[in-house]
Amino acid sequence: MATIKDVAKLAGVSVATVSRVINNSPKASKASVQSVTTAMKSLGYRPNANARALVSQSTNTIGVLVSDVADPFFGSLVGAVDKVARENGKHILIGNGYHDREQERQAIELLINSRCESLVIHAKGLTDEELIDYANEVKGLVVINRHIDAISSRCISLDNYKGAYLATEYLLKQGHTQIACIASSHAISDTEERINGYKDALTDYNQVLPEHYTEFGNPNNHGGEAAMTNLLAKSLSITAVVAYNDYMAAGAMSILDENHLSTPEDISIIGFDDGLIARYVKPRLTTIRYPVELMAEKATELALRLASDAPISEHPLRFSPTLVKRDSVSPLK
Amino acid sequence: MATIKDVAKLAGVSVATVSRVINNSPKASKASVQSVTTAMKSLGYRPNANARALVSQSTNTIGVLVSDVADPFFGSLVGAVDKVARENGKHILIGNGYHDREQERQAIELLINSRCESLVIHAKGLTDEELIDYANEVKGLVVINRHIDAISSRCISLDNYKGAYLATEYLLKQGHTQIACIASSHAISDTEERINGYKDALTDYNQVLPEHYTEFGNPNNHGGEAAMTNLLAKSLSITAVVAYNDYMAAGAMSILDENHLSTPEDISIIGFDDGLIARYVKPRLTTIRYPVELMAEKATELALRLASDAPISEHPLRFSPTLVKRDSVSPLK
Repeated sequence: MATIKDVAKLAGVSVATVSRVINNSPKASKASVQSVTTAMKSLGYRPNANARALVSQSTNTIGVLVSDVADPFFGSLVGAVDKVARENGKHILIGNGYHDREQERQAIELLINSRCESLVIHAKGLTDEELIDYANEVKGLVVINRHIDAISSRCISLDNYKGAYLATEYLLKQGHTQIACIASSHAISDTEERINGYKDALTDYNQVLPEHYTEFGNPNNHGGEAAMTNLLAKSLSITAVVAYNDYMAAGAMSILDENHLSTPEDISIIGFDDGLIARYVKPRLTTIRYPVELMAEKATELALRLASDAPISEHPLRFSPTLVKRDSVSPLK
Repeated sequence: MATIKDVAKLAGVSVATVSRVINNSPKASKASVQSVTTAMKSLGYRPNANARALVSQSTNTIGVLVSDVADPFFGSLVGAVDKVARENGKHILIGNGYHDREQERQAIELLINSRCESLVIHAKGLTDEELIDYANEVKGLVVINRHIDAISSRCISLDNYKGAYLATEYLLKQGHTQIACIASSHAISDTEERINGYKDALTDYNQVLPEHYTEFGNPNNHGGEAAMTNLLAKSLSITAVVAYNDYMAAGAMSILDENHLSTPEDISIIGFDDGLIARYVKPRLTTIRYPVELMAEKATELALRLASDAPISEHPLRFSPTLVKRDSVSPLK
């Protein structure tokens, strides 16, 4: 493979001149631009991003960390980041962290070391302190779906507690009192906040339910199936279920269906996220809307502004979930 | 920010020694490893991947190009690549190409310039020649869902034609003859191959249908809704529909439902992919299984072997789709 030295030799200029041409330096003369470009072409020399980045300290790239792009929720998040990136002539690099501390650390290191100037980080495994350290290191870093006091102006978060409270309250207002909770088995803040929202709504409506009305599972359709199966096995007289997300709700509904229990006639169910699947299950899923695309767009705009020291206008940092009424909840008969 | 020179000075060694330590060279002495590591820590020096890559010409990273990670099909593909990557101690970087020639080129350039040693490329906008050039440049490049004769041993593809033929033949065997086709509006080879499979199956069963039995739309639920709406508007006496993918089928089913047409009693419908949604629409979707995860795993294993000059054992290059019977197709009454 040709090196920068070969290019310099063929072009009859110094390595420094080749470097200036590669990095579009205004100091490069027209003649040297031409001779270097010709030499690079004839040698098939690729001025790699590493060499460029070392000089210009910029890669024009936005890094995104999510848990798992194969999860449609994170697919939507990444899609929204890429939309803003392309509008700004940037590209994105994406890493998976799987809500795991070590995996998140490795993925962020890879993005930082790939010279991503802006970072949109969805991290649940790392500690606040680690994220604060990264934020101090990378000025264009923004945290999404998490609030950390020390870097609050760089966090775009959702009121998860309010979302679960809204969901539970809606069921209570429909007359339900025997309300089970299908929670995520991931030990992340979202899980805790949503369980608290569920519990506090019950308390505020003078309902007390034992712990075994809450079942945990992986936050996907399989986890929802397993959790619903366990709830049915316990022979609880439940009439409604609050699910951690739409996929868990869909899994739970398929188990109810297999057991000849109708939604919502026998058991009402409410999801969380308002993802694509919510509109395609039957009955269509009543759910809590998570404005993930809007939040990801805002996070990306903020990350780009921070990276380029552009002025930051006032913007919402904490987003609110809203209730989306469809067909999976009915009043208690 | 501290530089490699600062580290060398503080450690009392040469820059070359620091570089050797950073790159885990066997030539680095134990003493120098210790003094350099201590110096790096006290200065907060981050040996960035660019500097490392320039020396070792390796980043331990697999690059993945897909159309759009927000599309669950590509989410699954990326998930499978990452699974194999992690099993091999590698990380992935992901880029979106949107089936667009220029976007694909820019995303591949970014991955190559980020020194990804292995590349799994799902490209539909680039020409065969451009992909051959990239394959010549990057020995660890593998193409997925596309066959190119000149680099056939590095292509993992699906028989799209056969999939659409199977789908159409299944409907024909159920007695249907008035079969519409909901195709993708993306001008990619998959579209053409699947339409040909549909047409040839009809021909083989002595059915001739005019062009307007085929409707095009974006390969997602919205496109399926629009295409089904158009088919209904044409007042065709169709009894079955072959859809480009499961999301288009789901969109079409929702339009049928809104128009008080039952699936499969009034109109049978068959999807393509066997994605998660196929099991959650009602009725559950009869579809053609696209073994995308299996194919992505094989492609990643191949890319890793090619990148490291490991021996390649015989392996399937062309995968076959299969029929998955569920509840959205019934015999013609």
